[in-house]
Amino acid sequence: MKRPLILVTNDDGIGAPGIKALIEVAMTFGEVVVVAPDSPQSGKGHAITIEQPLRLHPVKIHPEVQAWECSGTPVDCVKLAKNILFKDREIALCVSGINHGSNAAINIIYSGTLSAAMEASLEKIPSIGFSLLDFNWDADFEPGKEWISYIISFVLEKGIPSGSLLNVNIPAKKGQVIQGLKVCKQANSRWVEEYVTGTDPRGQSYYWLTGKFINEDEDEDTDIKALQAGYISVVPSHHDLTNYKSLASLKIMEK
Amino acid sequence: MKRPLILVTNDDGIGAPGIKALIEVAMTFGEVVVVAPDSPQSGKGHAITIEQPLRLHPVKIHPEVQAWECSGTPVDCVKLAKNILFKDREIALCVSGINHGSNAAINIIYSGTLSAAMEASLEKIPSIGFSLLDFNWDADFEPGKEWISYIISFVLEKGIPSGSLLNVNIPAKKGQVIQGLKVCKQANSRWVEEYVTGTDPRGQSYYWLTGKFINEDEDEDTDIKALQAGYISVVPSHHDLTNYKSLASLKIMEK
Repeated sequence: MKRPLILVTNDDGIGAPGIKALIEVAMTFGEVVVVAPDSPQSGKGHAITIEQPLRLHPVKIHPEVQAWECSGTPVDCVKLAKNILFKDREIALCVSGINHGSNAAINIIYSGTLSAAMEASLEKIPSIGFSLLDFNWDADFEPGKEWISYIISFVLEKGIPSGSLLNVNIPAKKGQVIQGLKVCKQANSRWVEEYVTGTDPRGQSYYWLTGKFINEDEDEDTDIKALQAGYISVVPSHHDLTNYKSLASLKIMEK
Repeated sequence: MKRPLILVTNDDGIGAPGIKALIEVAMTFGEVVVVAPDSPQSGKGHAITIEQPLRLHPVKIHPEVQAWECSGTPVDCVKLAKNILFKDREIALCVSGINHGSNAAINIIYSGTLSAAMEASLEKIPSIGFSLLDFNWDADFEPGKEWISYIISFVLEKGIPSGSLLNVNIPAKKGQVIQGLKVCKQANSRWVEEYVTGTDPRGQSYYWLTGKFINEDEDEDTDIKALQAGYISVVPSHHDLTNYKSLASLKIMEK
């Protein structure tokens, strides 16, 4: 039997430890190919590169894995994989990550990792974004690996609805065992920004983004609540941003 | 009575004709302030700038309007307006655009214009993204102006549900009168990419994004159908990407 083709990407860049961990798990399921950014692309959301040409360079990161680094965003990586590198082959699955840091709740819209997975879902490729709730470069990806294996095998065997992606976040409290896995909704939340302001060596003012995450959702079935309780959160997500609840009430606007 | 504070931004850059047209309309409703990118930011989606400091420079674009150009993305512009420039004042409305080109259907997720409006909606600021279906720099924004006026006055008087934004697209067929306004859902659609490939002056290969828009949604109540019939489309949109239809069926994944 031919092994399924699995595309791996991320937003922390092709050299990040998180993508290495994900490649190791993905290799147990199929033929792994990697197309990932040549530099960190955190917070790039669904950005695409329009005004510049893109570059792809083959790189050697594992003896059994074909890999390319790309000068563009995570979404560019998926587009190039689908339309240039593997246009004549079926990509059975796209996995993105493992992100260093949470992409739960509102973070999904800022995340290059999840936007890459969403782009794959637009191409009808089943896709999953994985994130570990630890920003450190030397984060411990080991405890999450068997769960990632379980999720990949579930998706390869049972599939997910076309046009959907899974947003998977893995808790990372020191000494805490992962309790299990919950399928949940995206918590309503936002960031309260607190810019660091300063003056650069040339005497010019600058503003540097920082901030605090605020969960505004007290419902029990959210990703934030699952993670707080030590569970892995899985949010089925999609690209339809229509607010259906408001559709009817806004009809009075029609002319 | 104090005039409402209206924040104007865009993704084509502070020098684009589209933002000028939007400022002119917004000025008839309140005190207009502008924070917009210093360079074109089309296709930047919900990108934020994390790894670099941001700059804000006051610029003179109209005698009655305070304006700043920003070195970041459209979303950065909204964050800086809310958290630095106007942290002590209530922003009554954020309008983004007028974008040169469509942001209907799937384009919303790639669009800096709409991502700026979404960021404002996360800050509980009623917000609207406006786009004209004409990519040209010298596009004719005049026929849409009275409709933009109507939509702004509707939102200022009646409000929109908290956390929502309106994605407004304006048809632009030469010689065709705008038929009216429809409140609709985002059409299910995607881009089929066709990269232009070539070799640069240094002999290196490059890939340059181009593509073809594909509407895969035959429903009658979509933004694409409204625009094709000559109507302005208004899609109430939000930041909750949960695919609620798939939540129940994926519960079998829980452990």
